[in-house]
Order: sequence, then C-alpha cells, then structure tokens
Amino acid sequence: MAKTDIRFGGFGGQGIITASYIIGIAGVMHEGKDALQTQSFGTQARGGQCRAEVMISDIPLSYAPMTSSDALVVMSQPALDSYLKSLKPGGLLIVDSSIVKDIPERDDIEIIRIPASEMATKMGNKVIANMILVGALVEKMGLVKRESLTKAIEDTVPSRFVELNIQAIEEGRKLVQAS
Amino acid sequence: MAKTDIRFGGFGGQGIITASYIIGIAGVMHEGKDALQTQSFGTQARGGQCRAEVMISDIPLSYAPMTSSDALVVMSQPALDSYLKSLKPGGLLIVDSSIVKDIPERDDIEIIRIPASEMATKMGNKVIANMILVGALVEKMGLVKRESLTKAIEDTVPSRFVELNIQAIEEGRKLVQAS
Repeated sequence: MAKTDIRFGGFGGQGIITASYIIGIAGVMHEGKDALQTQSFGTQARGGQCRAEVMISDIPLSYAPMTSSDALVVMSQPALDSYLKSLKPGGLLIVDSSIVKDIPERDDIEIIRIPASEMATKMGNKVIANMILVGALVEKMGLVKRESLTKAIEDTVPSRFVELNIQAIEEGRKLVQAS
Repeated sequence: MAKTDIRFGGFGGQGIITASYIIGIAGVMHEGKDALQTQSFGTQARGGQCRAEVMISDIPLSYAPMTSSDALVVMSQPALDSYLKSLKPGGLLIVDSSIVKDIPERDDIEIIRIPASEMATKMGNKVIANMILVGALVEKMGLVKRESLTKAIEDTVPSRFVELNIQAIEEGRKLVQAS
C-alpha cells in the first residue's frame, strides 16, 4: 500500500503516542519512507482520552502547511521560505539568525531575530538552541506560565539536561523582556 | 487568545519536535488546556526538512477524527466508540480485549482481539501492552520490517526497557502468525 493511515486510541498513560511514534521512526529512519504523526491530548490527559495517528507512505508526503499559524519559529532557510506565507497578518516570526540570513520583506508581522545557535554553543551545547527560541516565544505570546514550562521540561527531558534546558528558556525570555 | 497555532520549522536534529511537544505538555499537564501536536518528517529526516506544530487552546479542541483510517488500534472503550465509524471498509481493527469488551457489529472489517494488558502484566510490566499491539499490527499489515521496528525501539526507548519492548513486539507478531 503506497500510503497507510493508522489510528491509535485509548487513555493517557497507555503508550498510545509512543506506539505511533515508533512506527513512524521505523519507517522514516530505517526504510526511507515518509511519515506524518499527530497526537491530541485533552485536559484529562492523565487518564483522559488520548489519540495518536501516523500516516506512513512510500511516496513523499506533501509538506505544504495545512493551516495558517499565529506564530512561526524557524531554524532553517528552507523552513522560512516554505512557511512564511502561511503566517497570519499580525503574527509573530522568530528566526534563529545564526542560521537564517535571508528574511523576505513583510511589514504586517512582528519579527524577532535571535542568534540562538551561537548563544547555545557559547552556553556549552548547541542542541539547546531550540529552547532559547521557545523561551522567547512563550514570553512574547504569554502562551503558558514560566513554571508550567519548567515543569514540562522536568517531565520530559533526561535529568542531566534539565538545568541546561531551563537556562536556555531563561536566556530566551530575557532577550524578549529586554527588547 | 482562546486558540493559538504555533509552527516550528527547521532541519532534523535541531529539536523542532521537542520544542512543540514541551509547549503542549506545559499547557495540558500544568494549566488544564487542550493541545494538538503534529510532526512531519521526510526521507531525509536526519538533516532534512522537519516541521512540527502545536495548537494550544483554552477551550476543548474537537477530537473528531479528521480522516478515515486503514487501521484502528484501541485500548479503551470510549476510543472504540469514537473512532470505529471512521475505519475504512476492509480496514483492520485491533482491540486490547483486556479492556475493551463491547465491540459493535461491523462485518466489513477484520477484527483482531488481543488481551494485551493481561499479557503485558504477565510479562512483568503493564506498560508494554502498547507494543504487543504494535507487533500484531505491523505483522498483519506489513507496514515496516521487523528489523526496522527493533532499531526504532533501540533509538527511542530508554536502554533498560529495550529488551522488554522487543519481547512485546515479538509476542504480538506471534499471535498474528498463529491465527
């Protein structure tokens, strides 16, 4: 079958998301397929309804954005070139300016440039560039509280990296507060 | 804002997926919001284009399936009741029969009942029920090769659980081969 849609459903905590993710990883990393993986979780995620889906395909899946977004965070030039047009007017664009150099003109959005990869390298680990950007995004948009983000990192990141990730979030927050 | 769509784009390996997942977890687990998180990865996932999205909402998001599926794996009665109607004719339904007891009539699909939670408990850890179901699904549909699945588990599961997860996959495969 060229393209197969698999749906998993159950309660939170049963490993529904892991199940669909593992199949996606197996296909993409080890067999050269494409995958699209989706998960939704609700207010009762601990014990509530949970759904995960994976579409796995022998032919390339379209990466065209399906909806417009309120914010766009990019860490590569091709990502910016692909997704900028789907950022809503009045939206927020955050760019890792260590990597993305060519930002097309658009005067109906707010643009924040952060040299996140360079900052992360100076902090000791390039892989936390993403968290610097998350810190800036969340501070700017007021998406979730600082404590919620810290707890989410403690829940999901291996313990030896928790402190570094939280530092990265703080660096991102400070940049936005200062601007 | 009642509902916010955030898009992340970059190369594989930059932590794009983690960034969107962390925001979802922060909102859902620590602030009682709803979230929908999506990621797509391509044949060049290691270094290729990667996109992740998170929709975070103060009001409950709709969990109605957006598309029909070729296969459905359920580990709760509400999940079966919600998603069965979107399983395509000729599709495959796999049910954790330790949990889901009431399976509505549909003679246009194939149904496999596996007491996965009971089997997993006997194997020493209830949390691998999901992998028994994945083993059965992948064997039945020929989605990915057994070796690819094993490698995906090695890539993503903490090392002390790798062996148990692989055993669970094998149990699921054997059930389908025997039937």
